[in-house]
Amino acid sequence: MTTRETQPLETSDADSLPTHGYITDKDRYLSRLKRIEGQARGVARMVDEEQYCIDILTQISALTAALRGVALGLLDDHMKHCVLEAAQLSPEAGQAKIQEASDAIARFMRS
Amino acid sequence: MTTRETQPLETSDADSLPTHGYITDKDRYLSRLKRIEGQARGVARMVDEEQYCIDILTQISALTAALRGVALGLLDDHMKHCVLEAAQLSPEAGQAKIQEASDAIARFMRS
Amino acid sequence: MTTRETQPLETSDADSLPTHGYITDKDRYLSRLKRIEGQARGVARMVDEEQYCIDILTQISALTAALRGVALGLLDDHMKHCVLEAAQLSPEAGQAKIQEASDAIARFMRS
Amino acid sequence: MTTRETQPLETSDADSLPTHGYITDKDRYLSRLKRIEGQARGVARMVDEEQYCIDILTQISALTAALRGVALGLLDDHMKHCVLEAAQLSPEAGQAKIQEASDAIARFMRS
Repeated sequence: MTTRETQPLETSDADSLPTHGYITDKDRYLSRLKRIEGQARGVARMVDEEQYCIDILTQISALTAALRGVALGLLDDHMKHCVLEAAQLSPEAGQAKIQEASDAIARFMRS
Repeated sequence: MTTRETQPLETSDADSLPTHGYITDKDRYLSRLKRIEGQARGVARMVDEEQYCIDILTQISALTAALRGVALGLLDDHMKHCVLEAAQLSPEAGQAKIQEASDAIARFMRS
Repeated sequence: MTTRETQPLETSDADSLPTHGYITDKDRYLSRLKRIEGQARGVARMVDEEQYCIDILTQISALTAALRGVALGLLDDHMKHCVLEAAQLSPEAGQAKIQEASDAIARFMRS
Repeated sequence: MTTRETQPLETSDADSLPTHGYITDKDRYLSRLKRIEGQARGVARMVDEEQYCIDILTQISALTAALRGVALGLLDDHMKHCVLEAAQLSPEAGQAKIQEASDAIARFMRS
């Protein structure tokens, strides 16, 4: 857990950041994650009711795919905002943000 | 949603399947799924609080790995009980169950 | 590297194994693997010619998908023959083969 | 197949990109890909010799992991050079390159 996605850049406008962060789509992400949470609860209920194992696996596959969709969306947003801004600040800042993103991609692929 | 994994529960036979099906570990699965549900809620909260994107991705990676662990466990249990029993009943029954498991594995790998 | 997929079952017929091993489809597997080998060579050539990175990644994605297809096919064949036969021999033999297959599936999913 | 990753090689500029593009590591990539090609050939030989299926799957897992390592390395190089340069040229150019990289990551994750 490090810092927030964006740091105030000498701005007096409290609403300025949301206009160019991944925050724009926040509601959409939240509703997707709400659905994912419901899917997880659904899987637990299926296990509790001892439903057919293959059906449970199918639900877990759907849940995993939904999570990957969220991860890819967040990563894309992150690169288009945070990485891009860092790259425009300086090559070093850009490199550091890209390294961080690469590491996250590798971690995700191995998960 | 097809049939149940297991046989009727009202049985007087001590060797009845429910006692050594994936149901034995049901509590462990349920607690793992409870944790997964909590992780999903945690990811939603991180997005809501606009936490750093890379940290959110790290959490989604952990959640995906946890889900895969559950899926692999359920699959293993399924094969050791349902598939095995079918195989002992007849080659045809075994083949059918194995085909179903193969399809689930392929679906999961592509998810 | 352990033993062969199938053991002769009191048979004097040298051609007997292919009829119930994954060997039936051997030619098809070999031609798929030949193509995969060619794809790997193609990726090396693209790197050598310094082709566009994204195009190379696209080729690697295709190669990975082809490999997964072969793995899923081999796994399915293995379960339908080796695991099934073991299951029909005894529950213990079946369990052992299933454990081995589960471990291979887990390894593959993490690869 | 689009354009080349890098700039013309006939340059007198010591800072020219080819000296620190993914081309620097070209030999390393080529030797990794050579090894991958050999692994693919090894898998074909195992199938041809009808070796034990689980052992073949283990080899395919190793091959898949090696391929993913190459893909992650190329992606990292691509972002640190091609994407970074585009981002420094203009936000629009950066966005376009990032979109392209995101699409490649999504394709790879689904492969």
